[in-house]
Amino acid sequence: MPTLYHHPLCPHSRFIRLILAEYGIDATLIEERATERRPEFLALDPAGRTPVFVDDDRTVVPGASVIAEYIDEAYGAARNAQRLLPPDVKARVETRRLVDWFNVKFFDEVTNWLVTEKVYKRFAPQGGAPDMDLLRIARANIRPHMRYIGYLTQTRNWLAGERLTYADFAAAAHISCADYLGDAPWDEDEAAKHWYQRIKSRPAFRPLLADRAPGMTPGRFYAEMDF
Amino acid sequence: MPTLYHHPLCPHSRFIRLILAEYGIDATLIEERATERRPEFLALDPAGRTPVFVDDDRTVVPGASVIAEYIDEAYGAARNAQRLLPPDVKARVETRRLVDWFNVKFFDEVTNWLVTEKVYKRFAPQGGAPDMDLLRIARANIRPHMRYIGYLTQTRNWLAGERLTYADFAAAAHISCADYLGDAPWDEDEAAKHWYQRIKSRPAFRPLLADRAPGMTPGRFYAEMDF
Repeated sequence: MPTLYHHPLCPHSRFIRLILAEYGIDATLIEERATERRPEFLALDPAGRTPVFVDDDRTVVPGASVIAEYIDEAYGAARNAQRLLPPDVKARVETRRLVDWFNVKFFDEVTNWLVTEKVYKRFAPQGGAPDMDLLRIARANIRPHMRYIGYLTQTRNWLAGERLTYADFAAAAHISCADYLGDAPWDEDEAAKHWYQRIKSRPAFRPLLADRAPGMTPGRFYAEMDF
Repeated sequence: MPTLYHHPLCPHSRFIRLILAEYGIDATLIEERATERRPEFLALDPAGRTPVFVDDDRTVVPGASVIAEYIDEAYGAARNAQRLLPPDVKARVETRRLVDWFNVKFFDEVTNWLVTEKVYKRFAPQGGAPDMDLLRIARANIRPHMRYIGYLTQTRNWLAGERLTYADFAAAAHISCADYLGDAPWDEDEAAKHWYQRIKSRPAFRPLLADRAPGMTPGRFYAEMDF
């Protein structure tokens, strides 16, 4: 069975967990605190980031964007209509553009601050209390992203077009981390909320909704379908 | 003819210019100052970053990693031995891992600080002088990266293995920006320097060596093969 080194509140790990679950690929989950820089983990990925995927034949695939391309080539290409990186050239561009939007831009502006300040600092050697200024910035930054999701899903069935793609799971992975931490502004955009309700109700989402980080209770409606 | 919106000292733009030149794809270059947030540019890429590639059929491809995958699918797949994203699965993983290393990690730790402080601030609305502390951090951060390049190229012909790949051009693009700004420490690692001499001598590199940013003279040995 493949192995995924992940952290429950690492949004990039959640993205990969969601696409593995959508494809029905079982993987052994190993919780990794990347900040501890464990030598065995750095040997797998010198960059020392979660997630890292190790396939059955021991191919080591580090980093969310590299794993997503690998899974498309190794597992996705055979899925036809269920392929999450669609075969059409323009649809691939749009899917990758949005995956990058959430895994890079949204992460830089929102989830990196939220998760670092609220979660990783708890077990980091030089931890300390969350920086409230950074949390305020992240909470302000998330709002235009919610409106962008709303804008896209008002003209399309899913984020990147008519079919469900990696883009939806990248967006949902990041938003689910903000939601766990009580920082997803569900009053901001009705269409974005409806899109999240649709994706949250998929079976692939269930393991994420059961996640509990030690010492951190999720927001009240985190696991509810009606929020 | 395709169009590339770029900035001469944007390392991600340089990465794409290099791979277009390696493949012999001529493109009209349009210089874009992303910080000015020109509405016509934001219409092409709502994320507002260089580079953006517009192909002959008007397919708009924004962002270095999305463009690199697009070019592999649209132009690279037919190149066989010269394909810069090699067909073998494990070689693709290693190539993408290193492209990500330079386009994300090296950028976050080095080129983003150097280029923002020394170049973009000059024409940004709230510009000001470069922050010397950030430049010092970037100059310290670049040294372990030079040693990592040296380490890789002492056991392999090129960065990702025996053949030339995207990884070499991503690394060279970022280092060439640091070199233009006089911040590439050529005393750090002899093997890294030899690798850079090899890639710098390729015809695809010439247009980059001829680049001059307004009001900024490059380092003394920037365009020299012997540095």
